[in-house]
This record gives sequence, structure tokens and C-alpha cells, in this order.
Amino acid sequence: MSLLFQRGLATMASLKKASKVVCIGRNYADHIAELNSARPKQPFFFLKPPSSILLPGEGPVIRPRGINLHYEVELALVIGKRVRDFDALDEKAALDAVESYALSIDMTARNAQNEAKKKGLPWDIAKGFDTFLPLSKIIAKSAIPDPHKIELYLTVNNVVHQNDSTELMLFRIPQILGDISKVMTLEPGDIVLTGTPKGVGAVVPGDVMRAGIRINGKELEEAKIEVA
Amino acid sequence: MSLLFQRGLATMASLKKASKVVCIGRNYADHIAELNSARPKQPFFFLKPPSSILLPGEGPVIRPRGINLHYEVELALVIGKRVRDFDALDEKAALDAVESYALSIDMTARNAQNEAKKKGLPWDIAKGFDTFLPLSKIIAKSAIPDPHKIELYLTVNNVVHQNDSTELMLFRIPQILGDISKVMTLEPGDIVLTGTPKGVGAVVPGDVMRAGIRINGKELEEAKIEVA
Ligand SMILES: [Mg+2]
Ligand SMILES: [Mg+2]
Ligand SMILES: [Mg+2]
Repeated sequence: MSLLFQRGLATMASLKKASKVVCIGRNYADHIAELNSARPKQPFFFLKPPSSILLPGEGPVIRPRGINLHYEVELALVIGKRVRDFDALDEKAALDAVESYALSIDMTARNAQNEAKKKGLPWDIAKGFDTFLPLSKIIAKSAIPDPHKIELYLTVNNVVHQNDSTELMLFRIPQILGDISKVMTLEPGDIVLTGTPKGVGAVVPGDVMRAGIRINGKELEEAKIEVA
Repeated sequence: MSLLFQRGLATMASLKKASKVVCIGRNYADHIAELNSARPKQPFFFLKPPSSILLPGEGPVIRPRGINLHYEVELALVIGKRVRDFDALDEKAALDAVESYALSIDMTARNAQNEAKKKGLPWDIAKGFDTFLPLSKIIAKSAIPDPHKIELYLTVNNVVHQNDSTELMLFRIPQILGDISKVMTLEPGDIVLTGTPKGVGAVVPGDVMRAGIRINGKELEEAKIEVA
């Protein structure tokens, strides 16, 4: 836990001091279908290094040479308390453990990931390049009354590619926290990505990604991401 | 980078504040053979969460239910400066980037890892349980004149299972730093595990692991790990 965070609320600076970023895979059925993946019986997850975090205004996402770069828009949770062996049935405690939210794009080197999958190798390189985790500003918890009922969208060059409700999550936040914290204790300031809806795809140099959250059709200003 | 670390030297407390732990896989030929793995053309790596760090005296390694738990003794580097796009041929700069060392045991849920490999899933669960990264005390850089010429050993219940020289590394420290930092910027305080020699195996509840480093046959006191 960073000292910045200890003072109370998450700040943009404290996001980069997260002790870990944990990401849920395959949490929307239509996204599983589009990648021809198997549907998991329980949430599985992987890590992105905090060095991959890209805050608003920090510049473009790096396009590493030879990489087929995919976007995945996801709701991110900023954890507010230590979470260990969490009871997956306790919806209230789950939301208590969340300090705030952010929107995120889980940038993925898709060809490197596909090769890793084929060879049984770790995903961490494919997921972990510098700049591979653009984040929005912090979203106060009060701005999202129900995290399972918001709309996530992502456009590339103003064409909508992803646009779905978090209602479609296969595993909801309590179960996500339960499953992660049976393995890894979550610390205050840690970031949890909750999975991406369908519509992932490639970006090339020059493409501009815009992403955001709508609640009952109304845009959440602090959730906006614009990144090249 | 933690504030503790900014004051200068790594401390036991600053180890747990590492912004990431990066681990090299398959870096000793005989270990690759014993797991029937393919020999990599370049170093590949994965992350362990800092929450998996177990400092001396913090208690035993957790045996998660249903897990075949393996030890892997490894030399760990504590990074002293920001490392990005590092020149893999620059042996002197590589050692300059290292602030200190520690001995480590990369505890691995082998059956979970084998299942992940088969299904093309991430390794992070198999590698990332709480307590899955026992560390020794910090080893001052001056205590290890040549990190490519020390002996690592690990015993279980006083029977020697691993005992090899770091001379046998397939990829040496400059190349390890070069390959990691082309993907992820290494930050001061980050920890890099350099791979395990042959002899990995299972431990069950009650087993006591002891590990250490010998230099020219002489035991390095601060490198000793004793953990149940
Ligand atoms: Mg994702
Ligand atoms: Mg930290
Ligand atoms: Mg290892």
C-alpha cells in the first residue's frame, strides 16, 4: 500500500503505486465466443504490472513492433481495504471493499497471447508492456450506484466497437473478489479489472481510442478515456 | 518505488513494497529437461504478486488444498535504478542496475501450472498464492563478487535436492534485464528471479525447506532460508 493511499482516498498518483493489478479473463459470454475460448467454471485471472499503467494525458499506447495490438474496455475496481478469503456471497461487503472505480483498457498483444496459449507459456508479456493499461480519472464510488448496471463503450476513430452493460458479467464483483482473495490477498490501492464485453479488435498507429461509461444513458465525464 | 526504498538501500520492509516481481522461466538446461519443457530461444518471464512474498520469520508456506506444491530455489536481484530498453550486451551496466540480492524460493502449484499450460491459461494463479515467495535476508552486493559464479542449494528435511552453480544459467543477468526491460520498465525496488536449476520437487505439510548460497564452498549466512 502506498503512503499516498494511506491518507485516505485514491489519487491518480496512488494508482501507479498499486501493489498489483489483477485482471479477470473471459467474464462476458459473447467475448468468449468471439475469441473461440472455453467458458470458465470459475473466474480465472492474471496480473498486469503497475508499470503498464498509462494515466490520462501521459501519451499514446506504444505499438510494439510485430505486435497485433487489441483493446479490451473494462470496469476497474480500486480496492479500499485488505481482502483475504472473501465470502463470494456477501454482496454488501464486496462493495464495501471497493474504494472507487476507474475505466480501463486492457491492451493485449493478441498474437503474442495466442502464441503463449498454444505453447502453454505465461500471458504476462502479452499483457504487460509499458502503456498497456490506459486508465480514466478516478470515479468516485457515489457516481456508480450499481456497478453491475452500467454501460461500457469503446470507439476507434469514432466507430463504436464495444458497447455493453456490466449486467452481462458471468461472474459478478463479490465472486471475483472471493476467487482472487482465496489465492492472493488484495491490498488497499490494488486494482481489479473485471473483464471485457464483446467487440475487441485491433488498433494500428494513428488510431484514436475513446472509451467511457454511461449510466441510464448519461455519460460519466470522469470515466472518459481518449488515447492514441 | 516505495518511499522506504527512495532513502537508499533496500530493506526487508521495502522488499514487500516492490512494484513488481518478475521471474525468468526455464533458465537452466537440466531443469528444462526434468519438466519435459521446450528450450526457449530467448528468456520468457512471468509475474508473481508482491503479496506472495514471505520474509524470514513470517511463518510457513501455505499448502493450498489439492495443490501439488513444488519448490524452485533461485537467485533474486533487487533492482536499484529504473531500467528500460536495457542493452543486453552491457555486463557492467547490468550489475550497476542491481542494488542487492536475495535468495528466493519460487513456490509453484505444479498441478495447477500443468493444467494452465494444457489449457493455454495464465500461470499467475499457480505462481501467486500468498506465501509462495519465501525470501532470505537482503544480501549486500559486495557479498557476491560474481553472481554468475555462486552455488545455490535447497534441501528438504536435510536431504539435498537442488545444488548447482549459477554458471549454468542459459541467459545471464544482462540479457535477462535486456529482455524484460524491452517489455516492462523495471523500477527501483523491483525484484527479478533468475530461474531455477534442476532438482525441483514436491513438499508436503511438515517438510522443512532450507536453502542457501555458497561462494567458493563458503556459506553466505544472510542468504539462508529456513521455512516449513
Ligand atoms: Mg481483459
Ligand atoms: Mg508499491
Ligand atoms: Mg521459477
